[in-house]
Amino acid sequence: MTVEITTLENGLRVVSHEMPHLHTVSLGVWVNAGARNETLKEHGVAHFLEHMAFKGTKRRTAIQIAEEIESAGGDINASTSMESTAYFARVLKDDAPLALDVLSDILLEPRFDQVEIERERQVIIQEINASMDDPADLVFDLAQHCAYPDQALGRPILGTIGSVSGFSPETITAYRDQHYAAPDMVLSAAGAISHDALVREAEEAFGRFSARRSGSWEASEYCGGSSCEKKPLEQTHIVLAFKAPGYTDDAFYTSQVLSSILGGGMSSRLFQEVREKRGLCYSIGSFCTSFEETGLFGVYAATSPELTEELVTVLTGEITGCAATISDDETVRARAQMKAGLLMSLESSSVRADQIARQLLAFKRVVPIDEIADKVDAVDRGAVGALADSVFNTSQPVFSAVGAIDRVASYDWVAAQFGGTKQQVE
Amino acid sequence: MTVEITTLENGLRVVSHEMPHLHTVSLGVWVNAGARNETLKEHGVAHFLEHMAFKGTKRRTAIQIAEEIESAGGDINASTSMESTAYFARVLKDDAPLALDVLSDILLEPRFDQVEIERERQVIIQEINASMDDPADLVFDLAQHCAYPDQALGRPILGTIGSVSGFSPETITAYRDQHYAAPDMVLSAAGAISHDALVREAEEAFGRFSARRSGSWEASEYCGGSSCEKKPLEQTHIVLAFKAPGYTDDAFYTSQVLSSILGGGMSSRLFQEVREKRGLCYSIGSFCTSFEETGLFGVYAATSPELTEELVTVLTGEITGCAATISDDETVRARAQMKAGLLMSLESSSVRADQIARQLLAFKRVVPIDEIADKVDAVDRGAVGALADSVFNTSQPVFSAVGAIDRVASYDWVAAQFGGTKQQVE
Repeated sequence: MTVEITTLENGLRVVSHEMPHLHTVSLGVWVNAGARNETLKEHGVAHFLEHMAFKGTKRRTAIQIAEEIESAGGDINASTSMESTAYFARVLKDDAPLALDVLSDILLEPRFDQVEIERERQVIIQEINASMDDPADLVFDLAQHCAYPDQALGRPILGTIGSVSGFSPETITAYRDQHYAAPDMVLSAAGAISHDALVREAEEAFGRFSARRSGSWEASEYCGGSSCEKKPLEQTHIVLAFKAPGYTDDAFYTSQVLSSILGGGMSSRLFQEVREKRGLCYSIGSFCTSFEETGLFGVYAATSPELTEELVTVLTGEITGCAATISDDETVRARAQMKAGLLMSLESSSVRADQIARQLLAFKRVVPIDEIADKVDAVDRGAVGALADSVFNTSQPVFSAVGAIDRVASYDWVAAQFGGTKQQVE
Repeated sequence: MTVEITTLENGLRVVSHEMPHLHTVSLGVWVNAGARNETLKEHGVAHFLEHMAFKGTKRRTAIQIAEEIESAGGDINASTSMESTAYFARVLKDDAPLALDVLSDILLEPRFDQVEIERERQVIIQEINASMDDPADLVFDLAQHCAYPDQALGRPILGTIGSVSGFSPETITAYRDQHYAAPDMVLSAAGAISHDALVREAEEAFGRFSARRSGSWEASEYCGGSSCEKKPLEQTHIVLAFKAPGYTDDAFYTSQVLSSILGGGMSSRLFQEVREKRGLCYSIGSFCTSFEETGLFGVYAATSPELTEELVTVLTGEITGCAATISDDETVRARAQMKAGLLMSLESSSVRADQIARQLLAFKRVVPIDEIADKVDAVDRGAVGALADSVFNTSQPVFSAVGAIDRVASYDWVAAQFGGTKQQVE
């Protein structure tokens, strides 16, 4: 294992995985704060801040940030999720110092000019509009809202046009000051870089970050319920989901195996029954999104309005029939897929940099591949069946739809398939 | 250079790039035939055949194909483009023989059962519906139609609900018999595999393929024109495009540099002017799609209806002003990005397998990275300016839009910006 970790004096953790056969290095900063850390008035500010990082610093204009990295043939980008925000670059190996300098600059000394905020607000409003025009994005946002209503975890990461319209330089600065301290950040690199060189550069570039540790997020309260939006589309998009274990839960790997069996690949139950046997869908699959102490396990599918009733009936049937019928063959196959996926993650510098950074944020250590493989191997048919029984029968389902929703089953009917009581979320 | 090529007796070319540090291998068959080879009655059959390859063979049912690969932790998929169809897998290194056996089985002995065709027809109709609900997909399909009306190159790869509804087992068999001969195929692998082992396995698995060489496609005739579709969306999507060099043209790399300068990254002209300075778009960029003897150079953007007029004015201004103002700095930066991209392509087994297969199909050889880098380095400011002048002023533009099209500029106005005469495509 070539992973090394060093903690700087200010608490910033530096982690690297050297891949000496590569020409390039992927590196970035992962911050332990995202949309989940927002108050209601701050809805969308984590993502807005991520955008503003690229709009100029004390030392660089926006165009200089882009030109310096791209002139070296590299690229730089960022992404905001519920529990973290990542700023990352991929550059040729000799350009790691340049990438670190730019990353520290945009994280340490961003300027939040009023004029630039106004411009970027318009860009983000266009991003929100694009998301509303994407039925898959929309149906997932509706599902997330039903799962965690009136909580940051239930709100769209982008914010709304209304919420982002209210942000001032102070709103953005306040969120940043509260959540962007060195102990809450990981500098991660994978590829053509030595750990010693990375640490030397990191001390120079990131040593001035505040050492104060910031706050965390509120505990979630899963609710369940239904939310549907009528749209004139060729297909109706559906999400049916349930409360699932978080990534700190012992059952985490069991939930991943269950997801793989139900809808993880071409050999999965849903692909075979819904697509191969019935021809109901092109897109069909399951997902298991994990947060710290909670998660969302579900299925997503899209079909024509006249086939929606059959689709929902088949989906609920596959899910309710799952717990009692998990086979050894399926469990072994799902485990093989997950273990091969672990090896594949070692072959991409960008995937690996992201993986070790998120493990440090979540578990305060990098989990060896062999240890994960052992945990995956410990998941047997019985455990998967027991988890399915628990997931599908003890929480209110989430049911969201976008499209011709007048042809979609009622929430009462859907919930009744799982023994749930009725509940409607506005 | 660790690329090796062997031609089997039947004409099948076997190419590999061994990457001994990897645990996995990406491998597949790339066929020199795609949607461009279809007659009007066959519209969509290349893609339909690609789907049917997974629906059962003489030796395996559909579920067996999926289970054999996925039980080994691998995955298998396929994709159809205008000029080629690719069937590829990624597996652990010891499973290359299994992957080759499955690939040869689905390519050599697919069964086109009537029942399975009926089911898969429904899946493809859902895929077409999904594409019609995706405004970016739709606006590109409209642009492609305007560029090459009444030609296979101008028709959507998926086909239409009408065209795929007419396919029988005979339609699919006829297309396959005509275009899937060994001399028109490349078996490509990159990753943890030796060339000698690959060739041995390939002789076993693919030796029985027909050695007859099949036909090619008709020459294209670029036309230009406009096609717009009204949709109730938050954003209006726009493509503005021009005839560009094909990949066999000496100006190919010059066209890629031009695309990079105009809209290739955060430092590009369009990103800076349209997004950073004006906040008009979230998605903005250029593309240069190349076919054998022709190509399409264009820009794509999406914005709110009320901003569409400003967007189109800015886009045409940036494009018309381009030829006279290309700088050395921009050219050097674009070249650096392209050369770094070449090195990055060497670090992914799946990207590399695809790259060397497509080079063999297009150029009948694998082009050394150094040779491409030299060609990129030979592109100077003068060449880019001259190409821009030629591309933007000698062909009728293509202009397509999806959304609130009543607020979009007329084709006459757009074409007049480039000195083109008017032409409307139905």
